[in-house]
Amino acid sequence: MRPNAEPKRQDAPSAYLDEVDAGRRILQRCDALGAISEPGDGVTRLYLSPEHRIAAAALIEWMREAGMEARLDEAGNVVGRYHGEGGGGPYLLTGSHMDSVVNGGRYDGPLGVLTALDCVAVLNGRGRRLPFGIEVLAFGDEEGTRFRTTLAGSRAVTGDHGDDLMSARDADGHSMREAMTAFGLEPAAIGRAAHKPEDVIGFVELHIEQGPVLQAAGLPVGVVTAISGQTRATIRVEGAANHAGTVPMGMRHDPVLAASEIALTVERIAAAHDNTVGTVGVFKAEPGLINVIAGAVTLTVDLRSQADAVRHAAFAEIDTAAREIAARRGVGIAVEVILDLKSCPCAPAFVRQIATAIETAGLKVLHLPSGAGHDGMAMSRLTDIGMIFVRCKDGVSHSPQEAVTAGDVAAGAAVLLSFIENFQGKP
Amino acid sequence: MRPNAEPKRQDAPSAYLDEVDAGRRILQRCDALGAISEPGDGVTRLYLSPEHRIAAAALIEWMREAGMEARLDEAGNVVGRYHGEGGGGPYLLTGSHMDSVVNGGRYDGPLGVLTALDCVAVLNGRGRRLPFGIEVLAFGDEEGTRFRTTLAGSRAVTGDHGDDLMSARDADGHSMREAMTAFGLEPAAIGRAAHKPEDVIGFVELHIEQGPVLQAAGLPVGVVTAISGQTRATIRVEGAANHAGTVPMGMRHDPVLAASEIALTVERIAAAHDNTVGTVGVFKAEPGLINVIAGAVTLTVDLRSQADAVRHAAFAEIDTAAREIAARRGVGIAVEVILDLKSCPCAPAFVRQIATAIETAGLKVLHLPSGAGHDGMAMSRLTDIGMIFVRCKDGVSHSPQEAVTAGDVAAGAAVLLSFIENFQGKP
Repeated sequence: MRPNAEPKRQDAPSAYLDEVDAGRRILQRCDALGAISEPGDGVTRLYLSPEHRIAAAALIEWMREAGMEARLDEAGNVVGRYHGEGGGGPYLLTGSHMDSVVNGGRYDGPLGVLTALDCVAVLNGRGRRLPFGIEVLAFGDEEGTRFRTTLAGSRAVTGDHGDDLMSARDADGHSMREAMTAFGLEPAAIGRAAHKPEDVIGFVELHIEQGPVLQAAGLPVGVVTAISGQTRATIRVEGAANHAGTVPMGMRHDPVLAASEIALTVERIAAAHDNTVGTVGVFKAEPGLINVIAGAVTLTVDLRSQADAVRHAAFAEIDTAAREIAARRGVGIAVEVILDLKSCPCAPAFVRQIATAIETAGLKVLHLPSGAGHDGMAMSRLTDIGMIFVRCKDGVSHSPQEAVTAGDVAAGAAVLLSFIENFQGKP
Repeated sequence: MRPNAEPKRQDAPSAYLDEVDAGRRILQRCDALGAISEPGDGVTRLYLSPEHRIAAAALIEWMREAGMEARLDEAGNVVGRYHGEGGGGPYLLTGSHMDSVVNGGRYDGPLGVLTALDCVAVLNGRGRRLPFGIEVLAFGDEEGTRFRTTLAGSRAVTGDHGDDLMSARDADGHSMREAMTAFGLEPAAIGRAAHKPEDVIGFVELHIEQGPVLQAAGLPVGVVTAISGQTRATIRVEGAANHAGTVPMGMRHDPVLAASEIALTVERIAAAHDNTVGTVGVFKAEPGLINVIAGAVTLTVDLRSQADAVRHAAFAEIDTAAREIAARRGVGIAVEVILDLKSCPCAPAFVRQIATAIETAGLKVLHLPSGAGHDGMAMSRLTDIGMIFVRCKDGVSHSPQEAVTAGDVAAGAAVLLSFIENFQGKP
């Protein structure tokens, strides 16, 4: 049964009766899952590792407790199904990833899985079935920490898991294919992890913001408009190394000064465009000696924007300005674009319904782009996507210092449950 | 006999009858000495090495051919004396260093030694003695390549060779004291290398410019006004590493941008002061990842000026501006001065007499400071100093590409010989 065939709107101010308890409950499970880690600071839980296996077993157990049919799929994702009124699908997909970076936090990924799981547990506790099923996903690989290939889990769910992933190798030289076999999976059966589009009515992910916008706005949650597109480029500026004492200022061709102007130009141009950020994360002078005018500088540009047209225009401005700076200073320049990744918009219907769920929770609605990548980028090949952001302390993520409050988690859970209970497919 | 007791001025337009031949002769000897090197590109001839011993033996041989008494002193310097009319001193000292950097050129140091040697050979060939003796010095260590302590040779000549030098260790852990013993020197006798001030009437050094000023001016030689003083500082700028995608431009505290502004400020302030240069040679962002806003930047400032007051004022301006930039951008800053080395002025009488010698050679006089350090910095403790710069190709030094022309070397030799023949002590 398609959910939009029989729209039912609930107007309860909160989908939970026990919001704060829900927040504490979800955080306890984040703690429990966070303890499943390689030794060291924070959480280190890599794809197809022993920790992956233990975390998956815990999630399957918790899903079954919550009235779901749960299994490990052919890519190592955990898939839990809470069937609809008709005893099956189609399914609204929700969840996030269960892998981490090295020395990461407890919430990046698991918060979305465990909040979705708690929403289903609440529905199951009330004996409530919806006109559609709910599938909670815990993707085995989003970060790409082990094989440097991100989104392997969600790509398998969309049927886009190919040889580029299977042949990727970890630091020990093992391919993903070999690691899957060692984990007990059948690489040749990866296609069985793919979902049929007709079985799916959307994908909604709750995730910590990993940025400071919600904290600055004083809001526990926000609705994501798009996952920003990215341009990444390496810029090499070349002069000629020379003696720091013997060349008058007017006779220099110093790549450090050209690169400094370029870095400030990236800032100026990014700031002049809406929902756009630009970063120079690498800046290294060579040979890097105190008494030598540098011979060359390598710097990088990471430019992200909600709108691809804006991003392309901004990058063209940066490229032109950088070449002008280099020409004026008499240094060589080479600009190499190494990534041009399209923006992934959230479906307008999802943005609207998440905003309604936030209003229903009595909160102000803040729209923001996601500057970080997420599983939605892969999932958008399969179905419409939406994202709910939860405030995190100081915007810190990929760090043991990652932190959220029980109150904010409860607000996020209320919004997700309200969204699910009131979900309507495409208009 | 003091030379100023009986001033004699020669007005010959050139002290050499065979200038171009002199240039070729000196360059041939630079080639021969340059061949005494460790294997590899360019010249690598370190203090107290086998190459040092062979080069010293060659110089002693050439000095004796030129009518000099020559010996290796207690610091490994070669000292050649061409006695005055009275059969001895006092002596006008001249020369330069015979050590090199790793993969250096053939002229940085040796050109000054071999030009001085050629001047004496010309006088000797003419049977000419002056009212004072001439001492040609080839210092064993100026660059400090092996022990990272510069000017060990000239410091020994001035009696300033102490335990800081003797205890310095090379990359293999050998102290200078041990290396001297292995070379066949007596470290305890180092004091005997010291010259008595009353035996010395000055020190004049001819050296390649190691900068582009003479080439830009179209002149073969120039007269040095002072060896610039130096301030060296390390600046640490600290923000907090963060995700390149999730922090809006207006909420960033990016140390790369603060450091970029600081680098451009160093340029602006140095350019605003006469005879002053400022360099940011180290600029390194940490962690240095394309998709991470840097957490910190380390950069350095190398500031040199002919006048210490100008240098101190300029550095204070840089320090103030850097702190203002850091405060405005909300990043931490620590400025550490690691070197504050006084300017070493050339004696006005030497500057004047070198200028006269340049005019006598029919050339335009260009005064310039030396931004690089030289043995004169040590020698000025003992006696008045002067320096003659010879144009080098594109200002390149400390490189196998170091190059000079026979014509320029001949002009330098003519100026040095004219200066020596017409030398008058303090007025």
